[in-house]
Amino acid sequence: MAYIEVDKSLPGIRSLMAFSPETATPMGELANLLLRSNEGLSMAERELIAAHVSFLNDCFYCHQSHGEIAVCYLNGDRDLMNKVKRDYTSAPVSDKLKSLLSIAASVQQGGKHVQPDQIEAAKAFGATDKDIHDTVLIAAMFCMFNRYVDGLAATTPSDLSTYPPRARQIAEHGYGNHVFSAHQPT
Amino acid sequence: MAYIEVDKSLPGIRSLMAFSPETATPMGELANLLLRSNEGLSMAERELIAAHVSFLNDCFYCHQSHGEIAVCYLNGDRDLMNKVKRDYTSAPVSDKLKSLLSIAASVQQGGKHVQPDQIEAAKAFGATDKDIHDTVLIAAMFCMFNRYVDGLAATTPSDLSTYPPRARQIAEHGYGNHVFSAHQPT
Repeated sequence: MAYIEVDKSLPGIRSLMAFSPETATPMGELANLLLRSNEGLSMAERELIAAHVSFLNDCFYCHQSHGEIAVCYLNGDRDLMNKVKRDYTSAPVSDKLKSLLSIAASVQQGGKHVQPDQIEAAKAFGATDKDIHDTVLIAAMFCMFNRYVDGLAATTPSDLSTYPPRARQIAEHGYGNHVFSAHQPT
Repeated sequence: MAYIEVDKSLPGIRSLMAFSPETATPMGELANLLLRSNEGLSMAERELIAAHVSFLNDCFYCHQSHGEIAVCYLNGDRDLMNKVKRDYTSAPVSDKLKSLLSIAASVQQGGKHVQPDQIEAAKAFGATDKDIHDTVLIAAMFCMFNRYVDGLAATTPSDLSTYPPRARQIAEHGYGNHVFSAHQPT
């Protein structure tokens, strides 16, 4: 049960965003800008970074949600998503993405954990300044979202079948107030 | 030197927000909503929570900046701000604020570090659901900002005299795009 009085019919961050719709608006906009873009990093890569950081933060609701959104962009390849989420070093993804996931994992530990040689490696594999910027900010943003969800003990559905329908909705329509609205179906 | 090409004349998060103005907009809006309000928690209390979390994250730019903004609201009482920032348990502030700072410090470690007895204590000292919500989200937001600044190695002025003028500007005008703009004086 959440630490504050929220709508019990809404799961995870959605219950908190319904509690505080004014802060939900810029949070949804930031998520949209960082996750719903194929400029440089693809939407699949952005969601994989989000899922991996959420997994490292042990935020079940977020890594389950964003893992399933990544699956939508990966044409249903849940096995690939799970490999990247849990241990990207052994996953069949590009060296560029691996180097960015390494930076994201360091950001999860703390900003100063990112080392110059990680940045050099990412640039050597073709990462642009924007790719590096977006990776750091996506990882940092999920350090916020994960703490928001678990710091207030928001309800986390344990039924895994509830996540894919919601994921498909977000994959189709993006993040925005309409997604977090209390009036949307779960 | 920052890990990406940013305007070297801008310090800390401002250089990153000038690099990525589109993501700066919702980040500034979120900061404004959570820090520029006296509803429940005062602006001074909100900035003290921000400064303490940034201190725990060892983000010099952020704890120095937000500490000085708190000083503006505390009628220049830098000693009180420093006590709260570095060790609130011995600071002469209310039990309610101490109980919320304890929650913020747990959020800094990770969402699941917040325990039910901390929430109960805060409620016993008069904290409302909104106070608890705002405390958790302010702490979580600074876990994002701190990682954004240090994860990209943004420039951190070591000259302490540069922080108070900027703090006064924010205390007067708030956070918003105009504050982060590249065209504002440092």
